[in-house]
Amino acid sequence: MDLIRDPAAMRRWASEARSRGESIAFVPTMGYLHDGHLSLMRIGRARADRLVTSVFVNPLQFGEGEDLEVYPRDEEGDLAKCESEGCDAVFFPQPDTMYPPGFQTRLVTGALTTVLCGASRPGHFDGVVTVVLKLFNLVQPHVAVFGSKDYQQLQVITRMVRDLAVPVEIVGAPIIREEGGLALSSRNAYLGPDERSQALALNQSLALAQELFAAGERDPGVILAAVRAHIQAQPLGEIDYVQLVDAEELTPLYGPLVRPAVLVLAVRFGRTRLIDNRVLSES
Amino acid sequence: MDLIRDPAAMRRWASEARSRGESIAFVPTMGYLHDGHLSLMRIGRARADRLVTSVFVNPLQFGEGEDLEVYPRDEEGDLAKCESEGCDAVFFPQPDTMYPPGFQTRLVTGALTTVLCGASRPGHFDGVVTVVLKLFNLVQPHVAVFGSKDYQQLQVITRMVRDLAVPVEIVGAPIIREEGGLALSSRNAYLGPDERSQALALNQSLALAQELFAAGERDPGVILAAVRAHIQAQPLGEIDYVQLVDAEELTPLYGPLVRPAVLVLAVRFGRTRLIDNRVLSES
Repeated sequence: MDLIRDPAAMRRWASEARSRGESIAFVPTMGYLHDGHLSLMRIGRARADRLVTSVFVNPLQFGEGEDLEVYPRDEEGDLAKCESEGCDAVFFPQPDTMYPPGFQTRLVTGALTTVLCGASRPGHFDGVVTVVLKLFNLVQPHVAVFGSKDYQQLQVITRMVRDLAVPVEIVGAPIIREEGGLALSSRNAYLGPDERSQALALNQSLALAQELFAAGERDPGVILAAVRAHIQAQPLGEIDYVQLVDAEELTPLYGPLVRPAVLVLAVRFGRTRLIDNRVLSES
Repeated sequence: MDLIRDPAAMRRWASEARSRGESIAFVPTMGYLHDGHLSLMRIGRARADRLVTSVFVNPLQFGEGEDLEVYPRDEEGDLAKCESEGCDAVFFPQPDTMYPPGFQTRLVTGALTTVLCGASRPGHFDGVVTVVLKLFNLVQPHVAVFGSKDYQQLQVITRMVRDLAVPVEIVGAPIIREEGGLALSSRNAYLGPDERSQALALNQSLALAQELFAAGERDPGVILAAVRAHIQAQPLGEIDYVQLVDAEELTPLYGPLVRPAVLVLAVRFGRTRLIDNRVLSES
């Protein structure tokens, strides 16, 4: 496995692979890898000749007062996990090589990011798509795999790729959960034992919504009330948002549910903000 | 020569060429092609196996009240010129296929576009780099050729490519001038005979600046005063800006000239705004 720190070296590596006719799968991460990330690598591994994972805590996507400085890091552990998942290369750049002096061209997103997490994290998704596009240009993948825990991020990246005709196939991978149902996240490391226990209500509430929907409930208000009540029964959880939105446009759904809908939520436990979601299905 | 109107078809064409191991040179234009454009095609032709020219009057880079609706067009003439210059493909998309409903991801530029033409055309260069990046993703060129009459545009595109690590080599081509020295521009078609005659002062004033510089003058104020006086002697010309700026950062130069400098100017003749520039050289 090649450890590559220099962006120009990453591009050479990718160009050489491509010139040998090899296809490249890419898993961009912020590191502190858990089983969710490893599941993305396995999906990528199966879809291309070469697998590249990047580890980069991207300052552009953190707002003022967010957890950039304390975001958990474990370079040695991350490299061992990449090696054991069969990565051919790990790209480990630093902010000063990704954003050297004079850097000034960015991407900005649109309507998809004025809602949900975008509403409370201005500029966050602009930072996400900027770094994703730059990473794509350096790694030159045929296919890139993203988790769907951050449902809005997956939609925003998919839209960016469509809007700018980026020649990369985007694959959304299922959410991986701990026993008990908590969605895996590097930020789970921040949770105290009581918070972690109460955070199980998130996935339980999504399951409740799915049960109601499968039983024929089509009134968003009824489903949302049940979800909110279940979460509010946990004294340590503070709801940021709980919404039923169009699965592609992320616009809130008010009338009877007829289009594909996803229940998305963000809940704070102390200083830790957790997100989760579930696309509602007939059965 | 292939005439391609559909973005997806353009990408297939490019992917097939690349998979045959062919290199691609690209000349993006807004059409109404003149000898300046043809000179770009010749440079591209010499640098790659395949030559693609695009013709797209990009609405994103026109501001309110600008000349989008009346921008000169000549599809038949453009195609004939591309054919005779040996283009392998001409990409002729329409606004509704480049920017379909739901389009919302754009690029934004930084300090380089707060000055010169960017100061009087807010959003213009954001629209330029957005369409250039999308065209790059569709045409997948190894090298792209731009004229240097719009010096700021060339620098902004070069910076975008560097900032986002776009795998395309940018080539800046020399300004092509009519007999008499007027820089070729599709917008010259708007000029009346008196305006056209007085517009020769632009290139004359640049030559004057170069003479002064070569003779040892290093005071920006002296050079700028001479240039302004020469242009102001033409009653139909109204100066938008005349500046001496750093050749790469485009920041105004105040002290004695020690770094590479370019004299850039924009002058209105009636409703027509002309731009021109000259990098000052020792000899």
